[in-house]
Order: sequence, then structure tokens, then C-alpha cells
Amino acid sequence: MKSLLALLLLVNVAFAADPLPSWNDGATKKSIISFVEKVTKPGSPDFVPIAERIATFDNDGTLWAEQPMYFQFFFTLDRVKALTPQHPEWKTKEPFASLLKGDLKGALASGERAGLEIVMATHAGMTTEDFDKIVHDWIASARHPKTDRLYTEMVYQPMLELLAYLRVNDFKIFIVSGGGIEFMRPWTEKIYGIPPEQVIGSSIKTKFELRDGKPVLVRLPEVNFIDDNVGKPVGIQQHVGRRPIAAFGNSDGDLQMLQWTTTGRGTRLGLLVHHTDVEREWAYDRKSSVGQLDKALDEGWAKGWTIVDMKKDWKKIFAWEK
Amino acid sequence: MKSLLALLLLVNVAFAADPLPSWNDGATKKSIISFVEKVTKPGSPDFVPIAERIATFDNDGTLWAEQPMYFQFFFTLDRVKALTPQHPEWKTKEPFASLLKGDLKGALASGERAGLEIVMATHAGMTTEDFDKIVHDWIASARHPKTDRLYTEMVYQPMLELLAYLRVNDFKIFIVSGGGIEFMRPWTEKIYGIPPEQVIGSSIKTKFELRDGKPVLVRLPEVNFIDDNVGKPVGIQQHVGRRPIAAFGNSDGDLQMLQWTTTGRGTRLGLLVHHTDVEREWAYDRKSSVGQLDKALDEGWAKGWTIVDMKKDWKKIFAWEK
Repeated sequence: MKSLLALLLLVNVAFAADPLPSWNDGATKKSIISFVEKVTKPGSPDFVPIAERIATFDNDGTLWAEQPMYFQFFFTLDRVKALTPQHPEWKTKEPFASLLKGDLKGALASGERAGLEIVMATHAGMTTEDFDKIVHDWIASARHPKTDRLYTEMVYQPMLELLAYLRVNDFKIFIVSGGGIEFMRPWTEKIYGIPPEQVIGSSIKTKFELRDGKPVLVRLPEVNFIDDNVGKPVGIQQHVGRRPIAAFGNSDGDLQMLQWTTTGRGTRLGLLVHHTDVEREWAYDRKSSVGQLDKALDEGWAKGWTIVDMKKDWKKIFAWEK
Repeated sequence: MKSLLALLLLVNVAFAADPLPSWNDGATKKSIISFVEKVTKPGSPDFVPIAERIATFDNDGTLWAEQPMYFQFFFTLDRVKALTPQHPEWKTKEPFASLLKGDLKGALASGERAGLEIVMATHAGMTTEDFDKIVHDWIASARHPKTDRLYTEMVYQPMLELLAYLRVNDFKIFIVSGGGIEFMRPWTEKIYGIPPEQVIGSSIKTKFELRDGKPVLVRLPEVNFIDDNVGKPVGIQQHVGRRPIAAFGNSDGDLQMLQWTTTGRGTRLGLLVHHTDVEREWAYDRKSSVGQLDKALDEGWAKGWTIVDMKKDWKKIFAWEK
């Protein structure tokens, strides 16, 4: 049965039209297709068994946009506003007072601790099921400040095609994001086709409790894991337990994930999305405070990773583009 | 394609011989089959979509034996012996001195700290790849002190059939064990058909490092997560991100996993393996220091969980049994 299915899928792919229609022809697209063809060709020295076809994708700036701020920041700000009636003291208490006035710089003036206080005030204290519902409701209605689109419409069409292309070639795809694991899980399956068990991210601790005999998991105001930079290979090992053969990112936060992936034995693919399109999206790299791409860009060029030039390589960035 | 495959599998199952041949007919076997048929029958009020068919299995005492001690303990002891030439001081230093004399009680006399010291001395300090190889080599050669079988031959034949039966019904199966996550991953795919990314267990922290420009993950002597008791639902949420619809355990360490699973919405299955066969395996429950089954047994009876009586319900315990 399995081999019949595999055969039909192969035939399907062989006769399919371009699997990456939103990608312009050129070296970038070619390097992706060449990699996939090599590792999936039975008998080839580069062949990788299905079980080992693990691909990892960063989320912010790689699968969806991240400007003018990481989208989870807008979620956090909306939560602060929604919770203010229950916290009248926030109107005069920092960092909330500045945040409510729209003064982000002032809010974060006291540094990391202020940021952590805001995150915990908005992300902890409820059960996992309650938080799931909060995210679910927000993602279904909140809109991007510049485009007025739902945040889930701010996903990159070429990357959706890439996910589908890898999936049809029997890759198992994991998101590996610095963003909150439970902030992504409520919508990644619908938007990307990536189920919750294949989402890796930063997290806070949770605690099992019986409430009136009913078990719940309560979200605690304590950092559990930061899935960024050196944390990404650690998160991958924790969740997947084997090294990816392909990794996709866009910032210095993805550098170690790409190092870890591309130095594995055999043919490997490391890809960076370079934001170069100020017209259709944003253009930023070495000096951006959001999604800074500096060291990883140098290393990417030096090591021959695939660098996507969004302006040049992508016919279309968003599905709704004219 | 998908639906053709599903149809063929259904036909296959419908015409198949008994999917659980090592299980005696009776209420236990019936409750398992009845649950699977309900949740997989399209149009039924109990139907569960494939993506939500998550099943979690404890390992020690549920999938393989755990007497006279958890098998990871024997691994640890063998590692202490193997490492002693590099640690001549262990011959006189506790807890190692007692351990090397075979005096487990003496070794653990100073309590949890002694146990932790032994674990860290044998499980930390190397890279994840080196540890993988150490486990791989040990599991391929070490033998059980009573049966002289490889530890991987000490797996329960009826449970292997149950794993296969759930798999053919499109369940995704996770191991959720108090044992070490990286102690299981090197062999669970071959023995149980469960890939590393579906193994959840206790862990120590790891650290990303570049050694001569080559990335490695180094295992640190620091506890990361204890996947037992109240930790099991936490571990499931971290790794899977949704609640299982079926959970399988054998001890009080599995109680919270079964509570978490069986109180989800819809038809759920909670199952406990009760070790009742002193002839073919071991008989122990409320007073055992290994795999104690006391509170969970009471709650299981009270709540109508499926309780496997190994002596009565299993035709065969191990595949190699005459």
C-alpha cells in the first residue's frame, strides 16, 4: 500500500505543473528543487529515508511578516488594553502606564524586566485551554496596523507553496520560533498545515492542578524555555530528537539552527529569507531591531546557504496582492 | 488518494483476523476494540478526526518490563562500571563506592542527591550524539539479569499488537515516560515503531557549542524536566499541544496522565496494566517500590478505566515465551 501511494505521489509530482509558481525562475528556486530532488531520489547517494526528512522553519519574518513589530507584541498590547479594567492601577504603574499611552520606548525603559512583566501579566495566570481560546479569538479578528489585513493573511505565499512542496515529498515540517509555542498552536494547522505537535517555541512553565476534581494546566509567570539563537538547536533536539536536513530562517536568531542543520552528514539545505522589498513588504537587515540579519547573512554568503532576495525571487509576496 | 488509502485500510481492518491475537477474549479486549471502533466510525457521535487521535503510552511496566529495577538503572550501573577506570576516586567515594560493591541501598542512603549524582556522572558531560551511541551500543548487547534476554526482548507482545492496531486506525502514538527521553529515542523506532519526535521523557539540560567550528549539543549535569506524575500532562502539553484521547499506564506515576486524558470532551480510553502474573512476569502493585500501583488502581476501578489483568487477559506476555 505504502509503495503504491508513494508511486502515485511521485507520478503526480513528475507531471505536476511548477510546484513553486510564486517563485521566479533562477538560482534560488533551482537550489530548493535540486535539493528536494536529490534527497528523495531512491538509489541516489544523497537519498534520505522518509523518517529522516525533517525540515524546520522559523515563523516571524520567514513564514509571516514581522514588521513594524513582532505580531505577538500587538497581541500583548491588545491584551493589556483588554485587561486594564481589571487592573486600574496600570494607568499609573510602569511599565503599563507608558504602554497604554502608546509609548513603547518608555514602557521598556527599565529593560528586560519590564518586558517580562508585561508578558507575564498577559500570558500567565489562566489555564492552557483559556489561553488557547484567547489567542483563537484574537487571531480571528485582529488586524495589521499597516495593511488592515488579518495577521494570518500576512503569510508569504511562496513559503506556503514551499511547505506544500516539501510535504508532498514526505518531509515532516516543524516550526521553530522564538515566539510563544501556545501563541502559534491555535492557528498553525489551519494556516500552514502544521499540527500543534510540530510547533516548537518559547514557553512559560505550566502546573497541573485539580480544580473541583477537574484537571487543568495553569500557566505560571515563569520562563520555561527561550527558543531563539542557541536555544533553537536545543529546542529541536528536545522536541524532534534528530537533526533536520533543511532549515529556513531570516534573522540572526536562526543562525545556530542553520549551523546545526547544515553541518549534519549528507546533503543539507540552509535557507535565509532576506527582506529586500520596500514596495511590497519591508526592506531591512543588519540594523533592524526586529529580525536583525547581520552575522547570519555573512555566514550564509560564506557557506553557500540559499539566500532568498524577496524582491527578485518572489513573484508575489502575499496571496491577496494584486 | 487519501480517501482511497483510507478505504483500503478500512477494508483491510474489516476483513483482518483478530487485531489483538495475544489478548484473551473478554471485557478488557472488548473495551479497547469498542473504543477504537467508536472513535473511528465516520458519522458516529463519538467520531474523532484523524489529527486528534493522539494516544500516549507510559514505557516502564507498560510497554516493557520494569523488574527487578527500571532498566535505565541497569544502564546507569553499567556506565558507572565502564567509567570507573577514568574515576579511580569512585572506589572509595560515595555513592559510587557502595554502588560498585553492588550495595544499592548504601549508595542511595543519603537520599535523592546521591541518585542525582550518579545520574549526572553517567548521563551528562558528553554530546547528544555521543550519548546516543552509548545507549545504542548498550541496548544492543546488555541482558536482563533474570531472563538473560536483551532488554528490547522484554517488551510485551500484547502491547506491540495494540500499538499496531492503533496505528492502522490512524492514531499518532507518543511515549510519555518518567525515563530519560534520550535513553529511549535510540531504540523506540525499531522496537515500537515510535519515532524520536514522538518520545517524551525526563531530561537534563543541553547547551549549544561550537567546537572547532562544528556545532554540538553538550549534555549538562542539570535537571531540565521530570516527566512523571503531575509532570506527565505538562510534558504532553509541551510536546503535543493537545489532549490525548487514549492513555495507557501501569503505575501511580501515570495517574495524572490518565486523569488529564479521560476528562477530555467525548469518548476517552484510560487503561492500566496490572502486573498479576508471578509465573510469566512479576506480580506487584500497592507496595512495590518499582512501579507502585495504588491510588491509580483505586481511581481506575472507581472511574471505570480499563484494567488489564496480565495473568487473565494476556495469552502471551513476551514474544519468545514457549
